[in-house]
Amino acid sequence: MKVYINGKFVDENDATISVFDRGFMYGDGVFETLAVYNSTIFRLTEHLIRLKNSLSLLYIDINCSDLELQDILYQALNNNNITNGILRLSITRGVGLRGLDIANCLNPTIVVISYNIKEFPVEVRKNGVPVIISSVVKNHKRSVDPTIKSNNFISNIMAFKEASNLNAVEAIQLNSDFHVAEGTTSNIFLVKNGVVLTPDLSTGILSGVTRQIVIDLCKAIKLPIKETTIKKHEIIEADEIFYTNSIAGIIHVKSIQDCTDNNKTYQFMSEQKNISGILYENYKELIKLETGNYWG
Amino acid sequence: MKVYINGKFVDENDATISVFDRGFMYGDGVFETLAVYNSTIFRLTEHLIRLKNSLSLLYIDINCSDLELQDILYQALNNNNITNGILRLSITRGVGLRGLDIANCLNPTIVVISYNIKEFPVEVRKNGVPVIISSVVKNHKRSVDPTIKSNNFISNIMAFKEASNLNAVEAIQLNSDFHVAEGTTSNIFLVKNGVVLTPDLSTGILSGVTRQIVIDLCKAIKLPIKETTIKKHEIIEADEIFYTNSIAGIIHVKSIQDCTDNNKTYQFMSEQKNISGILYENYKELIKLETGNYWG
Repeated sequence: MKVYINGKFVDENDATISVFDRGFMYGDGVFETLAVYNSTIFRLTEHLIRLKNSLSLLYIDINCSDLELQDILYQALNNNNITNGILRLSITRGVGLRGLDIANCLNPTIVVISYNIKEFPVEVRKNGVPVIISSVVKNHKRSVDPTIKSNNFISNIMAFKEASNLNAVEAIQLNSDFHVAEGTTSNIFLVKNGVVLTPDLSTGILSGVTRQIVIDLCKAIKLPIKETTIKKHEIIEADEIFYTNSIAGIIHVKSIQDCTDNNKTYQFMSEQKNISGILYENYKELIKLETGNYWG
Repeated sequence: MKVYINGKFVDENDATISVFDRGFMYGDGVFETLAVYNSTIFRLTEHLIRLKNSLSLLYIDINCSDLELQDILYQALNNNNITNGILRLSITRGVGLRGLDIANCLNPTIVVISYNIKEFPVEVRKNGVPVIISSVVKNHKRSVDPTIKSNNFISNIMAFKEASNLNAVEAIQLNSDFHVAEGTTSNIFLVKNGVVLTPDLSTGILSGVTRQIVIDLCKAIKLPIKETTIKKHEIIEADEIFYTNSIAGIIHVKSIQDCTDNNKTYQFMSEQKNISGILYENYKELIKLETGNYWG
């Protein structure tokens, strides 16, 4: 794989950054993970809007237009012969002086890594997946603005580790008010009495690109959708649960183990996954319409 | 400067790590900053104990004894001809597969960078420093264990930026209960009616090495010291305020601007800095006793 670093493509074994890079020292950077179908980056504009928001909130000025970023990403695809795959665009504050002062960090680091995808593990999607409710809560929204998709991922990593220990594939994190927030790399939805519910942004979550697509799809196909506060018991009592992200798309949940309550386990029957199934079909069609393919 | 990376010393311009290192991708690592006086690393044991705690809580197994780490740190001093200076020991989870799963990260990255110190800016210390109470709260203690000294520093960086904008040199962060927590790279103390007070660890703070030294010094010289919950108004109404870290030692505060309350500013007269002055003299003596020198 050829990795893009600050204007050059280098072999993945030579793809290095300085140990003085603030991304390495302090997790002081942001990233976006983008899906590529049929040589087309899906919903690139939405990802770039979010990226710019993240950069702006962290006062990182990359002096690089959307068109230039788009060009870099497509070069990464071409240089790696990727038709269907994944791109990770990382931008950090670059090298600075010792200490936390950001005034001397004038040259951000831009890195693009890419992955080919031949086949997505469909069996994961077919039967639904086990998830947990993690004991690790989301970062407080007045600590790091949750709309920043930053490299500060330790909370997510610890929650994911808790899931792995229980053979689950995703962890639902609560916020510090004990309301349902989001997954470690996903947004959460539930269905109750035919209404689709998802935590509103004031819960302190990332505004997921796929989350927004699902909200828009619900409106388009006249499914009642509500962004709201969701209490923990509501997710357990849901008729269906699913989560979304840019790579996996829409994944339905078959069981929840609650690590905040003695690992109590709740099953969700596959016949209950009516609505997530309908949304998934519509989501696939949307991607095919915009890119001509779907590998998820 | 020669930088230590995984067994080798390289020139600082060649000191690089992989873009796939989890430290770069997710801030997935820990660090310690150590002061060196007279070719002696001050309180190395305490730093290594904390480091091991951080690593253990993140499930990072470095397979390297305290003695080996000590050897690496002293090699870094020797190879850079440092008599008085600063060492930064960083350990990340190393390179792994795509995604959050830590199971495949088997080779942690160990980096040591070092700085010579010729003269510490004493004028900063002489008159006390302006600080702020930041609007950016500390990370929630159930999100990332606050006893982990991790690379997830965005909250601290944002708080420090707020301080810089107001020409202050440190930001006091509250926790999400609005209690006084810690500075961006320091622990906070106040003095009220002759009693020294500092937030207790249950507030959700790092257990600072210098914080513990100050607590021990207070006990040694019979100054009443209390680790407790400190409300925001208590710090503003204090007789003296000071903060501590391993590099700056003990720094007294001359003014506080409260960013959580219309930037109201509170002055602390220099004659009020009696107790921090006494503690600072004792701290210097302790370092001289243990290392033979003091450059702070």
